Amino acid sequence: MSSDTGDRTWGHLAATEHYGRITDTTDYIQVDKENLKNDPYYNSSQASHCMIFARNNKKTFGVYNPRAAILMQMRFDGNLGFPGGLVDAGEDSIKALNRELTEEMNLDTSKHSVSESSYVVTHWSISKRLCLHFYALEVSLAELYEIEKRALLAKDYGSEVLGTIRMPLYTMGDGYRGFPTFLTTPS
Amino acid sequence: MSSDTGDRTWGHLAATEHYGRITDTTDYIQVDKENLKNDPYYNSSQASHCMIFARNNKKTFGVYNPRAAILMQMRFDGNLGFPGGLVDAGEDSIKALNRELTEEMNLDTSKHSVSESSYVVTHWSISKRLCLHFYALEVSLAELYEIEKRALLAKDYGSEVLGTIRMPLYTMGDGYRGFPTFLTTPS
Repeated sequence: MSSDTGDRTWGHLAATEHYGRITDTTDYIQVDKENLKNDPYYNSSQASHCMIFARNNKKTFGVYNPRAAILMQMRFDGNLGFPGGLVDAGEDSIKALNRELTEEMNLDTSKHSVSESSYVVTHWSISKRLCLHFYALEVSLAELYEIEKRALLAKDYGSEVLGTIRMPLYTMGDGYRGFPTFLTTPS
Repeated sequence: MSSDTGDRTWGHLAATEHYGRITDTTDYIQVDKENLKNDPYYNSSQASHCMIFARNNKKTFGVYNPRAAILMQMRFDGNLGFPGGLVDAGEDSIKALNRELTEEMNLDTSKHSVSESSYVVTHWSISKRLCLHFYALEVSLAELYEIEKRALLAKDYGSEVLGTIRMPLYTMGDGYRGFPTFLTTPS
């Protein structure tokens, strides 16, 4: 194991790295909101993530309707992901998410913040015993552009977050390039 | 075929889409510089791309030596790629690349521009009959950060270019997350 490059070691990340393991879809079950106050969910680890998006019909190359600009991040582990993270002690999933959005994207939560109305769904990871709460935050395209610019000034930029990208949602002429190709990206 | 979303059509891209097809490594041979003035290379289509990078040893999470910050783009087709593109009539590969860097990344070519000294290698795509010239442009980490900020103001941002990311070059504790995971990203 190389200690000077840190390669193949976890360091202090060892305590939480298992949350980042990629597991397949059978590892997840959807949990109805009213069940969240029951175990195993209530007393388990929690994480919350957010899809920030803007509707966008300005055709790409004058050919493809982008539908929307949806933001994802290149993460430190080489996967693409939505911004968010683990809920800390004393936080609820919304407070944690607004904190993570500030740390990871420098989001101006006085303008755009996640609230109960942004809630979409919760999944339970059986292997990780982890509740994953998902939220969606719609903004205008101009606001999304400002969010992208601010993201470069975030505390976590250049370390935990290695860039913000938009997802191509259209399918190009070969039926593969565009969204289908994007979906093969590890995430 | 859907004409309103443009899905599964090429529109005017039909003429050049074949250049974007992903082919495997056997489709490429390295061409020595002195052979470039001979056919089939000299009179074939040409493209040039550039790796903009900065050395960076500031440990990520205090654990991983990032080695460098290397910029890639999320492209319109869902692949990650280095900035650059096809050489137009009347251009040489360097002039074309500086034009593409301006269009795609809003690079201030009065400060940072590709020159003969940035040249790295050329590959010939047998199937596409295309010469692919590759250049590398080293900048300081502070300069790279400015380049990332400027990239959001590029002409092609939000259409041909869907974001700029840094590549994670370290390997995490499971021998998979980090650079190995990143390399499975379509590109």
